[in-house]
Amino acid sequence: MMKKPQQKYCSFCGSTTSFKVPEDDNRERAVCDKCGTIFYENPKVVSGCILEWEDKILLCKRATEPRSGYWTLPAGFLENNETVAEGALRETLEEANAKSNNVKLFFMCDLPHISQIYMMYLGKLSEQKYSAGPESEEVELFSESDIPWDDMAFSVIEKTLRLYYEDKKNGKFSIHFDTIDPR
Amino acid sequence: MMKKPQQKYCSFCGSTTSFKVPEDDNRERAVCDKCGTIFYENPKVVSGCILEWEDKILLCKRATEPRSGYWTLPAGFLENNETVAEGALRETLEEANAKSNNVKLFFMCDLPHISQIYMMYLGKLSEQKYSAGPESEEVELFSESDIPWDDMAFSVIEKTLRLYYEDKKNGKFSIHFDTIDPR
Repeated sequence: MMKKPQQKYCSFCGSTTSFKVPEDDNRERAVCDKCGTIFYENPKVVSGCILEWEDKILLCKRATEPRSGYWTLPAGFLENNETVAEGALRETLEEANAKSNNVKLFFMCDLPHISQIYMMYLGKLSEQKYSAGPESEEVELFSESDIPWDDMAFSVIEKTLRLYYEDKKNGKFSIHFDTIDPR
Repeated sequence: MMKKPQQKYCSFCGSTTSFKVPEDDNRERAVCDKCGTIFYENPKVVSGCILEWEDKILLCKRATEPRSGYWTLPAGFLENNETVAEGALRETLEEANAKSNNVKLFFMCDLPHISQIYMMYLGKLSEQKYSAGPESEEVELFSESDIPWDDMAFSVIEKTLRLYYEDKKNGKFSIHFDTIDPR
């Protein structure tokens, strides 16, 4: 969740920039004082997975800040040149050494105050094989009764799990949409 | 669709950068030679709308490159601090001076070769009021038989419309997922 530092210098020519509204635009951007390059900032997609094994799901205990030591679903920033589902599976492999053959979108959550969109997928672990990747302290399968609700890393992850268990109880999984905005 | 120029200089301190794999990472990033700031590049979300009025939908003829003079749905890059649906409605207002009170996600399409994710919403025009914004040459309501299929600006927009008319014929709109990747 590293915040990109302010665009004080032009990435392209190294000159200083000024914040102003470019011609034909309606909001302030960093614009290079020399070459005129305009720098846009856009929201980022975070994608991740709920992976099931029998009646359990896979959680990771974070080994990095923010929220080191708290539990989360495998998830992370989408990289260039991958699909959202590919990103969710890559993060799951990196953080939990776990795989799935088929995941479907389960929950899309806007977090406009931090300019992020969470896209959480649902699928089954392809085999009972998982272990902590470099960003995880621990990776474990949890039954509903053992979920560490008081030690969840992020409210969007807690919301994902609440929706999952609600749907599971109702016997039907659908796609959910929500916004978390504490502003 | 302006491509951000390569990160040759540090946005934060103006020094040169080098492309290398940072510690604890697994892919090349631009890293500042002086202050060590790492620059991440991530996919961008494009959001837009199909807006219905009676049996017609709203299309815009583009007045800007790329694909100036070709037809599209109102859509554009999501901005920081807005939800995906808010972005779709803002673009619709900017490009077509048109509004809707309620839109729902209809089609999500990954375009990994250009690191974009299209999120297209479906709703009804709140009133029969629309006109060309600065980025549009013309804005019109089209019946299915009048859609300018041979003059569509982007394949993802054509795909959105094909899915829309397919669902309309079947009497049921659902959420669709696809990937366009000509690589």
